[in-house]
Amino acid sequence: MATGKVICVGLGPGDPDLMSVRADRLVRTARHVAYFRKAGHPGQARQIVEGRLDPQAIEYPMEYPVTTEIPFDSPEYRSLLAGFYDTWAARLADLAKAQEVVVLCEGDPFFYGSFMHLHARLQGRAAVEVVPGITGMSGCWTATGIPITWGDDVLTVLTATLPEAELAARARGTDALVVMKIGRNLPKLRRALQAAGRLEQAWIVERGTMPGQRVQRLAEADDVTPYFSIVIVHGQGRRP
Amino acid sequence: MATGKVICVGLGPGDPDLMSVRADRLVRTARHVAYFRKAGHPGQARQIVEGRLDPQAIEYPMEYPVTTEIPFDSPEYRSLLAGFYDTWAARLADLAKAQEVVVLCEGDPFFYGSFMHLHARLQGRAAVEVVPGITGMSGCWTATGIPITWGDDVLTVLTATLPEAELAARARGTDALVVMKIGRNLPKLRRALQAAGRLEQAWIVERGTMPGQRVQRLAEADDVTPYFSIVIVHGQGRRP
Repeated sequence: MATGKVICVGLGPGDPDLMSVRADRLVRTARHVAYFRKAGHPGQARQIVEGRLDPQAIEYPMEYPVTTEIPFDSPEYRSLLAGFYDTWAARLADLAKAQEVVVLCEGDPFFYGSFMHLHARLQGRAAVEVVPGITGMSGCWTATGIPITWGDDVLTVLTATLPEAELAARARGTDALVVMKIGRNLPKLRRALQAAGRLEQAWIVERGTMPGQRVQRLAEADDVTPYFSIVIVHGQGRRP
Repeated sequence: MATGKVICVGLGPGDPDLMSVRADRLVRTARHVAYFRKAGHPGQARQIVEGRLDPQAIEYPMEYPVTTEIPFDSPEYRSLLAGFYDTWAARLADLAKAQEVVVLCEGDPFFYGSFMHLHARLQGRAAVEVVPGITGMSGCWTATGIPITWGDDVLTVLTATLPEAELAARARGTDALVVMKIGRNLPKLRRALQAAGRLEQAWIVERGTMPGQRVQRLAEADDVTPYFSIVIVHGQGRRP
C-alpha cells in the first residue's frame, strides 16, 4: 500500500513572495525535494526556494540530458527526453511508495511545464497532487503596469517556436497577445509582429518579478534575450 | 505630499491557501480594505479573506450600481458603471493621500478584473501597486487534473459573451481553449463548441478550488451554471 505521494508545487513567476501560502508551507516542510535543471546550472525552480528548504531535506536535481543543443523536433531529442522522463517517473514513483516527494516547478505546473511529462507517466503508479501557481505571464503583464484583457478581449498565448507566418496571422487575429519561449526566436517574432502591424504595441519583459527585471517596448529592445522572456501586446477592449 | 498608496491584491482562484505569501501578509495587516460586490451579496473577494482581516480594519464595500439587470453594451450600463468607477477612484485617491488602502480582487487583477477601471482613473492621482494572483483559469485547469498546454500548443482565452459564430470559429482555430464569463451564455457556447467539433473534449469547472467545486464534461452538464464557471478544452500538443 502506497502511503506517500508526489506533490508538484507551482512556485510562481520568480519572486519567492509570490509563491502561494500552500506552496511556501510545502516547500519549507518537505523532506524530499526534486526539481528540473540544465546540467551545470542551479535551476530556476531551485533558485526561487533558496534559503527556504529544511537543511535535512534530500535534494533530487533532475538534469535534462539535452536542452537547446539539438532541434526539439528531432527524433533524437524526443528519444533522449522520453528516456529521461521515464527514468525519473520510475524513481519518483518508487520514492512515493512511502514518502511525500515535493517537485518544484516555476510558474504554473499545468501551463507548458516539464512536470506534465512526469505527471502523464505517474498515472496509476503514484498518488499525484498539483498546486497551481501564478504564471510567468501574469508576473510579466503586471510588471508592465498595464492590464492585459478588458471586457470581451480575446487573449492568445503562443510560443515563439511557431513558424513566422503563423505567428503573424495569430498576432493579427487577436486582441491581446502573450508570446512565450522567446530566446533565439526573437528576430523571427519581431518580423511577424511587424507584418501583423502589432510591433509598436508590443512589450518585452525579461526576468519578470526577479532581480534584474527589465520591461521595454519591443521595438526598442535588442535581439538578444533570455529564453524565459515574455512578449506582451495588451488588449484595448471595452471599458466604461 | 501623498504618503499613502492603493495596493490591489490579487487573491487567486478562491481557496485562501492559494493566496500569495505577499497577498496574505498585506491582507492581514491592512487598516483600510476595499472590495467590489453586488448589492446584497457578501462579495467573492471579501469571502476569500474571511477570518484574516484585522478586527480594527475599516471596510469599504464598493457596490456595483448594476450587474446583469441591463445589457452590458447599452449606453445606460456604461454611464452607470463609469460614474461608479469615477466616484470610487476619487474616494480611494483621497484616502491614499495619507493611508495605505488595500483593494481585494479575486484572481489576477490585470486579467479581466474590475480593478482595472479604477487603475486607469487613478493614474497621476495616487501611487498604485498591483500584486498578481493565480488566475481562476489556472485553478480550474488544475482541478481537471489534466495539463492545459503542451509543447507549442496555442491557447485561446475567450469570454462567452462573444457572438456564437465567433466562438465557434475561435474554438476551431486553437489547440487549447479557456472560456470565461459563462453563466447564461452556456447554451450558446455549447452550440458553438458543437459546431466546432470540440464539445466532446470540453470540461466545465464550477466554483474551482472552492467548497462545492464541480468538474464535469460539458456534454454531460446541464445548462444552468454560475457566471464564474470556466469551460476548458485541453491542448494535445507535442510530448516526448
